[in-house]
Amino acid sequence: MAEHLVTFDIASEPVRVQTGTLLSEAAHQAGIDISQPCGGQGRCGRCIVQVESGFARRRSTLRISSEDVERGYALACQTVVEGDLEISVPPQEKIERRLTTDRTVAAVSVPLGYDYQRDQTTRRVRLTLTPPSMDDQTDDLSRFTKALRQQGGYKDVPVRLWILKKLGSVLREGDWRITAIINVRENNDGVSQDIQLIDVLPGHILDDAPLWGAAIDIGTTTVTLWLVDLISGQVKAQVSEYNGQIARGEDVISRIVYAGKSNGGKELKELVQGTIHKLLEVACKRAGGLDLLPTDIVKVTFSGNSTMLHLFLNIPPASIRLSPFVTTVNEIPLMYAQEVGLGINAGGVVDFLPGVASYVGADITAGVFSSGMDDADQITLFMDVGTNGEIVLGTSEWLVTCACSAGPAFEGAGVMDGMRATKGAIEEVWINGETYVPTYRVIGETKPRGLCGSGLISLLAEMFMTGVVDKAGNPNKKLGTSRIREGEHGTEYVVTWGSESEHGEDIVITAVDIDNLLRAKGAIYAGYRVLADSVGVPLEMTEQMFIGGSFGKYINVEKAVQIGLLPDMPWERFHFLGNTSVLGGYRALLDKNVRKAISEIASRMTYIELSADNTFYEAFMSALFLPHTDLSTFPSVEEALLGESNQ
Amino acid sequence: MAEHLVTFDIASEPVRVQTGTLLSEAAHQAGIDISQPCGGQGRCGRCIVQVESGFARRRSTLRISSEDVERGYALACQTVVEGDLEISVPPQEKIERRLTTDRTVAAVSVPLGYDYQRDQTTRRVRLTLTPPSMDDQTDDLSRFTKALRQQGGYKDVPVRLWILKKLGSVLREGDWRITAIINVRENNDGVSQDIQLIDVLPGHILDDAPLWGAAIDIGTTTVTLWLVDLISGQVKAQVSEYNGQIARGEDVISRIVYAGKSNGGKELKELVQGTIHKLLEVACKRAGGLDLLPTDIVKVTFSGNSTMLHLFLNIPPASIRLSPFVTTVNEIPLMYAQEVGLGINAGGVVDFLPGVASYVGADITAGVFSSGMDDADQITLFMDVGTNGEIVLGTSEWLVTCACSAGPAFEGAGVMDGMRATKGAIEEVWINGETYVPTYRVIGETKPRGLCGSGLISLLAEMFMTGVVDKAGNPNKKLGTSRIREGEHGTEYVVTWGSESEHGEDIVITAVDIDNLLRAKGAIYAGYRVLADSVGVPLEMTEQMFIGGSFGKYINVEKAVQIGLLPDMPWERFHFLGNTSVLGGYRALLDKNVRKAISEIASRMTYIELSADNTFYEAFMSALFLPHTDLSTFPSVEEALLGESNQ
Repeated sequence: MAEHLVTFDIASEPVRVQTGTLLSEAAHQAGIDISQPCGGQGRCGRCIVQVESGFARRRSTLRISSEDVERGYALACQTVVEGDLEISVPPQEKIERRLTTDRTVAAVSVPLGYDYQRDQTTRRVRLTLTPPSMDDQTDDLSRFTKALRQQGGYKDVPVRLWILKKLGSVLREGDWRITAIINVRENNDGVSQDIQLIDVLPGHILDDAPLWGAAIDIGTTTVTLWLVDLISGQVKAQVSEYNGQIARGEDVISRIVYAGKSNGGKELKELVQGTIHKLLEVACKRAGGLDLLPTDIVKVTFSGNSTMLHLFLNIPPASIRLSPFVTTVNEIPLMYAQEVGLGINAGGVVDFLPGVASYVGADITAGVFSSGMDDADQITLFMDVGTNGEIVLGTSEWLVTCACSAGPAFEGAGVMDGMRATKGAIEEVWINGETYVPTYRVIGETKPRGLCGSGLISLLAEMFMTGVVDKAGNPNKKLGTSRIREGEHGTEYVVTWGSESEHGEDIVITAVDIDNLLRAKGAIYAGYRVLADSVGVPLEMTEQMFIGGSFGKYINVEKAVQIGLLPDMPWERFHFLGNTSVLGGYRALLDKNVRKAISEIASRMTYIELSADNTFYEAFMSALFLPHTDLSTFPSVEEALLGESNQ
Repeated sequence: MAEHLVTFDIASEPVRVQTGTLLSEAAHQAGIDISQPCGGQGRCGRCIVQVESGFARRRSTLRISSEDVERGYALACQTVVEGDLEISVPPQEKIERRLTTDRTVAAVSVPLGYDYQRDQTTRRVRLTLTPPSMDDQTDDLSRFTKALRQQGGYKDVPVRLWILKKLGSVLREGDWRITAIINVRENNDGVSQDIQLIDVLPGHILDDAPLWGAAIDIGTTTVTLWLVDLISGQVKAQVSEYNGQIARGEDVISRIVYAGKSNGGKELKELVQGTIHKLLEVACKRAGGLDLLPTDIVKVTFSGNSTMLHLFLNIPPASIRLSPFVTTVNEIPLMYAQEVGLGINAGGVVDFLPGVASYVGADITAGVFSSGMDDADQITLFMDVGTNGEIVLGTSEWLVTCACSAGPAFEGAGVMDGMRATKGAIEEVWINGETYVPTYRVIGETKPRGLCGSGLISLLAEMFMTGVVDKAGNPNKKLGTSRIREGEHGTEYVVTWGSESEHGEDIVITAVDIDNLLRAKGAIYAGYRVLADSVGVPLEMTEQMFIGGSFGKYINVEKAVQIGLLPDMPWERFHFLGNTSVLGGYRALLDKNVRKAISEIASRMTYIELSADNTFYEAFMSALFLPHTDLSTFPSVEEALLGESNQ
């Protein structure tokens, strides 16, 4: 097959590739990281490049105007090399760090009555061995396991290779006094135990020295790590970072698609491991300066959605996406860090919280536990709106759950001027009811670049309440404002004129965007309905609603109710809990009974597959309006609208 | 610290190293493999190089003449860089392959009555799973473990990461009909079982298809591999190769020293793994052509001495060499191939036979089993003379064992013109009793280069029987032959004049060589004595003697008795068994009861540490003569000597 030379303007050297190679792959070879938020499906248009000269064939030009196609623009993920090429790469969108410490650190207190000796699975066992002599040439391992049995009471403890490699020197360095660190897991029979030998260290280490663990939540967008002293139970550092996989797809579906490409799974694993290793280093430095290293961490508890946990281990997630939507594994077995390739203590135990289904993962079981709804007398609704929307309804008696493929509209994707909640994003909007001129708040107090999720909710609610759009989301062209106009994608409303925006172009919301937002919120609302119907409980009887996920923190409840994303009930029933996934992971890291409770939650939760549910479609169709076809289910909105029209 | 440029004549590029770097390390960096048979201790003199120009400091010049030192010769392992250097490297000794198939293939028959179903630990379990549907979205793992429990009867089977990674695709590729390969290990309690899940394969594989295993013996000098069909029990290929570690030390002590150097352990591990991977490839090709791959092998049983097994896993062997001489581990736990880095099936089980002590390893327990002495009514002596000499004495009732630090003299090391049993080695010698002129047989029917072990035994015996040396090994200078002369290392006997040798120099045996040989054979004989004394059995009551190790195959019993290496008894009592270590490994690979029997042998064997035994030194001193101080213990030799002198 013929080979061609591809020259990228920002690469140090040209690369040589075969006919038919994707431009995105050629760029990767050249060391250029082209953002592919949709996972290389040709749908997001963010991987656009310009062909300066040479032969390239476009498979798809979706999201590029015919004018731009003529000017040489092409999607890197949809264009193949057919001859020598010169390519220029526009500046890639940078992810601005909004994940600063002060905004993400939660005030976490150690669970009341936490008792390391009673609750923790890890423990130190101090052993004093008889040194060998010419009269007693017993091998080191037998000597060690005998002491562990006689002095610690632990028998049949498997000793893995990495311990065998250090055992001889540790015994001698400690002059036959050593400390073994073990993990005790009670089996399901409630009687027998499995012991994992984590490490052996020279000398006798006392229990007042800290013993380190971490709770890590792998979110599709954000990875959060809490570093914990397992002895005191205190969280010593909280750090977050964007998941390094973002440039390979913004939502789980795009990531699954990307994982299916050759080497894609390995690449995604390495990207998220890179993020985690960075977080481990930062957290250790913050908590212990130069004295604390990631290798001092002996136990990690992971939470995250099913796809993220599969990708972290490079277990192919393909079946999650295909009907009948099953995971390879809902409850990943306990592993050693060394097997996983996690840069903590080689023998450190890695515990994965259990998920329920392809789209109801360990982040939700952890969330249910940390919200306390599994123990509640009242009927409780729990929602985690992250890149996906998962909903749980229940009490201490019963739990039903479903996942809404809401799409990532509320994360700013699939919307013309949507963006993540970073610097330059409009996060809240107010529209003047007479002039239809909006005012807004921008993250970072700068000129706006686009609209993030909370901004979109706010904008849509304001448009509806002021009559810029009707119940069906159609803009009212008769209002006599130049902000409502016909654009390339149908009728649109101008939020910001180009003169006021950062990039000099108008920021708009189009009829297509509104449609996408209606579908997203409609799917979630239909989810509540189906869950409520499945147990025969009227949705209106919900006594409290917990909202997890960092998204919740920035949401304006009133406006979310106005568009019908949240059910209409008194505001005091809403509780925003922040990152309930990492909180549940932290609690499970500390306390074996919590860990058991989360497994029980997973097995108690009845999963309802919406795509197989007849009532879902009807509920969805009814919810494709602002706030809903049946306005009587949103009495506060009805009342406000009456107020508006009475003015 | 200053850096210097070191240029090797045979390297492609100079290397830059710091002051104080050993020349051997600099050479390694330059990609040159300098042979270090003594492990870099500066004792063997084989790593000699010539300093053409520049500054180098010699720590030791042992084995280099002062003349050669002046000409710039230096030991690479004992010379450090102190400035820019130009070095020329003489051609390295090549290991000629004597390990051809015809000489090493043993005739092995499948043990009588071998029954795969009953005896083997590995088995295939064919499973038919219910496919998932929208009504049953159970995850793959739960579905699989349920089938394994319900259809196979195996519960609580741990599923490791490498299985999770392939499970989803195997289930779908096999259309929900799969074959699991498992290993069932009965625990010591005789009731419970440990199950290892080796692999999952699509479709139903029937039991008449072969299932592959291998027995591997890691010898200090030679690695031997038998490829076995576990279903029929047949050995399908036998291959051998020199242990790739040889260039880093010829005996275990040199290897232990080398392992203690920085990165030495890792290097030794990689060297022997390289050898094993080569053997796996060759054996698979021989047994199955292109259709059989090492990854088809699901179980391996390893035997070998304690140091070799430690080095294979890169477990530091330091304590084996230091008083009180203990190993890190005598019975290495069962491992998965993936943990070990062995290039068979990732989930293949790797079973290490148990050793007894630092110098009585798994090769000996395997040897005792395959000799059958653990089941014998007669008093039996078992000896394995490889690079070390291990001895076992016993019956079905009792077993005592010891190791003689005989040194590698019988492998040709520590002897001026000694060499391994390769092409050009004199392997048998006859001396004319009147002219004292020797005739000899050379391996490969070529001009001789030196003497191998069997040649040395033969030579020493002939020298003694013809009066060239006396009882104490001193050459008789009054015989009037020019072959006995004074050399640089004392009196010597010329075996081959330079005109007849390959390299044009005389091949001699010196008084120092003879002394080394006497010490080696004396240590072994003293070993027999101490063992016999320890159980109060006269050595003469030994009813049979088994000799293991490839060395035994080339030994001339009569001559070995004449020098006192073997005890004097009727020849029919001697049995040469070949490689009893790999044979025992093969039997254990096939049959779980054999495996158990070998563990029982290991625990039954009473180890006697000769260096702590008062009677050893006395027995050793008495054995430093030809054949022994007390000639009456060697009646056949006494008789022969009388015959000679009566002629």
